[in-house]
Amino acid sequence: MKKDQLKKLLIKIFIKYKLSKEHANICSDALVNAELVGAPGHGLSRLKMYCDRINKKVINPKPKFKFKKISSSITQIDANNSIGFVAADIGIKRAIESARKTGIGLVGIKNSGHYGLSGYYAEQAVKKNFLSLIFTNAPPAIAPHGALKTLFGTNPICFGTPTASKIPFILDTSVSMINRGKIRVAARTGSKIPEGVALDKNGNPTTDAKKALEGVQLPIAGFRGSGLAWMVDILSGVFTGGNHGGKVKDPFDDFSGPQNIGHLFIVMKPNLFVNNFNSRIKENIKRIKRLPKLKGVKEIMYPGQNKFNRYKSNINKEIFIPDAIKSDIEKLLN
Amino acid sequence: MKKDQLKKLLIKIFIKYKLSKEHANICSDALVNAELVGAPGHGLSRLKMYCDRINKKVINPKPKFKFKKISSSITQIDANNSIGFVAADIGIKRAIESARKTGIGLVGIKNSGHYGLSGYYAEQAVKKNFLSLIFTNAPPAIAPHGALKTLFGTNPICFGTPTASKIPFILDTSVSMINRGKIRVAARTGSKIPEGVALDKNGNPTTDAKKALEGVQLPIAGFRGSGLAWMVDILSGVFTGGNHGGKVKDPFDDFSGPQNIGHLFIVMKPNLFVNNFNSRIKENIKRIKRLPKLKGVKEIMYPGQNKFNRYKSNINKEIFIPDAIKSDIEKLLN
Repeated sequence: MKKDQLKKLLIKIFIKYKLSKEHANICSDALVNAELVGAPGHGLSRLKMYCDRINKKVINPKPKFKFKKISSSITQIDANNSIGFVAADIGIKRAIESARKTGIGLVGIKNSGHYGLSGYYAEQAVKKNFLSLIFTNAPPAIAPHGALKTLFGTNPICFGTPTASKIPFILDTSVSMINRGKIRVAARTGSKIPEGVALDKNGNPTTDAKKALEGVQLPIAGFRGSGLAWMVDILSGVFTGGNHGGKVKDPFDDFSGPQNIGHLFIVMKPNLFVNNFNSRIKENIKRIKRLPKLKGVKEIMYPGQNKFNRYKSNINKEIFIPDAIKSDIEKLLN
Repeated sequence: MKKDQLKKLLIKIFIKYKLSKEHANICSDALVNAELVGAPGHGLSRLKMYCDRINKKVINPKPKFKFKKISSSITQIDANNSIGFVAADIGIKRAIESARKTGIGLVGIKNSGHYGLSGYYAEQAVKKNFLSLIFTNAPPAIAPHGALKTLFGTNPICFGTPTASKIPFILDTSVSMINRGKIRVAARTGSKIPEGVALDKNGNPTTDAKKALEGVQLPIAGFRGSGLAWMVDILSGVFTGGNHGGKVKDPFDDFSGPQNIGHLFIVMKPNLFVNNFNSRIKENIKRIKRLPKLKGVKEIMYPGQNKFNRYKSNINKEIFIPDAIKSDIEKLLN
């Protein structure tokens, strides 16, 4: 299906599920974007889940956002159990506005839900020529170092910066060895996951995606990755007023209440300290790209470059929709 | 040697090398602290290097700091090639003051040098009851993903938060598999380094510390760790006005000019968004600590806890000083 056609269908579905036209548009853009950048685990595979959560009244399709302006740089947003896409869209826009006025914008959001890819919001900041640091927590997926039970989410660390070129630098890395979304897609399609990324519920290594979902995902770099996941939980959960410490509900499996995910956006003007950020970042990337390369490496890529290339190559192609999801879409439309 | 005696000697040396009494005190505290927390790679093993750099006029012992106040939250500091400890001490204090007034403090420092452990400055913020994110770059040690040559420093990511207990949560993790300081200590003492943390100059795995110093340190988690190192280089170098993209000089080997390291401090009030941060962070840590544990694990530790325990157990003990460093100290005193 072409992206515009898909977007129209998604808008129709979200409006049927009581979102405003504006909010339906935001959510549809985010889902289509996830498919185009090659992150289907954050795309259509979640559509039915969002609609189910609206049906079960654990996502509020008509949220009333409460803004608490703490200073000209700092705002807290209570997202009133909004779908995460809308809360994050409002949050990043507010952080950008604050940074435009004061040099730095800080927005903490509580009572939100899963918002897809952090990089999608960093990209908004880059397009307006701002740096950003973005943190969000997520349902338990990774065991803290030393623990036999999952508690941290895949808790991405996201950083974006303008590059003085049309391809933004966007690092959006979960602190697990593999994205939970990818495991979920593998479980749905019956494919294997790589070795060394997950344990089953008894603590044994597994390549079976379903067993991995019941078990434990491994953090990157042991104690270090575990510490980074903990940092993200504190910044996006403890600090903002959102759920934390393993209390964020799995959106697919737990309909006993809203997720109350927290997000934290820090946005900064690139020319705060220097008047030639563009030439500095260009020079930085150039120096790294011209290093001698490992055998078989054509180009040293910066974070976000591969994603941009995938987006560009996919934008006029048909978006592949697995049969299970096609049938979801049909049911949701009728 | 007991810590107070050691500190007196260090102050004497730094004053002999033309630092003010106040600056000598700051530097000596930082070096003694590194020894006490069990990070000798950031301690006495660097003393002679600092003095040599002062002698060669690539560290300025009498820096004139230039402050550029960008807003009530944001300051840039030109450290005038100060020793890093002093620049960082001034920087974190300024960031704390800004955060006290406005909720958030952002300080970018350029023309600084190696400042030891990021966690040491995060600890200052925690003691005043603030959260902090701290970034600094460093001389080339890690190869970017896909490259055959080092360019990124070990570029630590540091995050600190009050915990409502006397033991702060301080994550201070380099994005290399091992700290360069540890390899340096191993090279000086002739001990081996672990497997899988470094390659020699030809790209072959090595456990020989000297060969590792000539070669490449491996980042954590491949492309992810490389991306995190790149992020730190941009935030602390490109953004602040410091050197970046592999231009930070190795302080031990390159006396052709000052290092011009950049640092970035972000400090935030814990109660910006919630009025019960203390009870929330306490609950967060409690939930994680009471998870079922892996075999052999007595307690799930949060970042900073081990370091604090080492500090506490070392504080009244003799600080072990290897012979090579004893002889450095004697020469520097005479």
